[in-house]
Amino acid sequence: MTIGVVATIRIQDGKGPEFEAFFTGLAKQVRENEPGNVAYQLTKSRTEPNTYKVLELYKDQDALAAHGASAHFKAAGPGFAPFLAGRPDVEYLDGVG
Amino acid sequence: MTIGVVATIRIQDGKGPEFEAFFTGLAKQVRENEPGNVAYQLTKSRTEPNTYKVLELYKDQDALAAHGASAHFKAAGPGFAPFLAGRPDVEYLDGVG
Repeated sequence: MTIGVVATIRIQDGKGPEFEAFFTGLAKQVRENEPGNVAYQLTKSRTEPNTYKVLELYKDQDALAAHGASAHFKAAGPGFAPFLAGRPDVEYLDGVG
Repeated sequence: MTIGVVATIRIQDGKGPEFEAFFTGLAKQVRENEPGNVAYQLTKSRTEPNTYKVLELYKDQDALAAHGASAHFKAAGPGFAPFLAGRPDVEYLDGVG
């Protein structure tokens, strides 16, 4: 079963361009190294300032687990800290159809 | 620029299976007929009952416009009414990277 994730990330004012460059590097690694990842797209809210949402799709729960356990994701973890304005909000969703 | 959409759809209690069958038919048509659609995945909330989220990605704003103007999407519109518990909440997001 496909798994969806919507991760909402609020960052500190003025750090948008630097955060986007950082995240784009991570997204490239996800796309290149995770065969079970179907989509991994950073997006920016049109209504809430300094707010990003990552739209993610995995082919199954194992693929999501592989994402969380990947060397590139673990390595990127500490890199988020300088940008964050709060704890990210991560919603997991069960794919249908 | 990639465009993301998260459409939140709340349906009436007990109508889940019938709604899922209806929506799966629409999703199939989107995937088969819209070259600018990158992802169109129905998902179900793990925390909110009777709540679905459609995770959508389009290659650009024109592709999103083509989705809204498509014959299959327009034809499906009235089919949502018997399931809905309220007006769907559609969030548009600007892709980054």
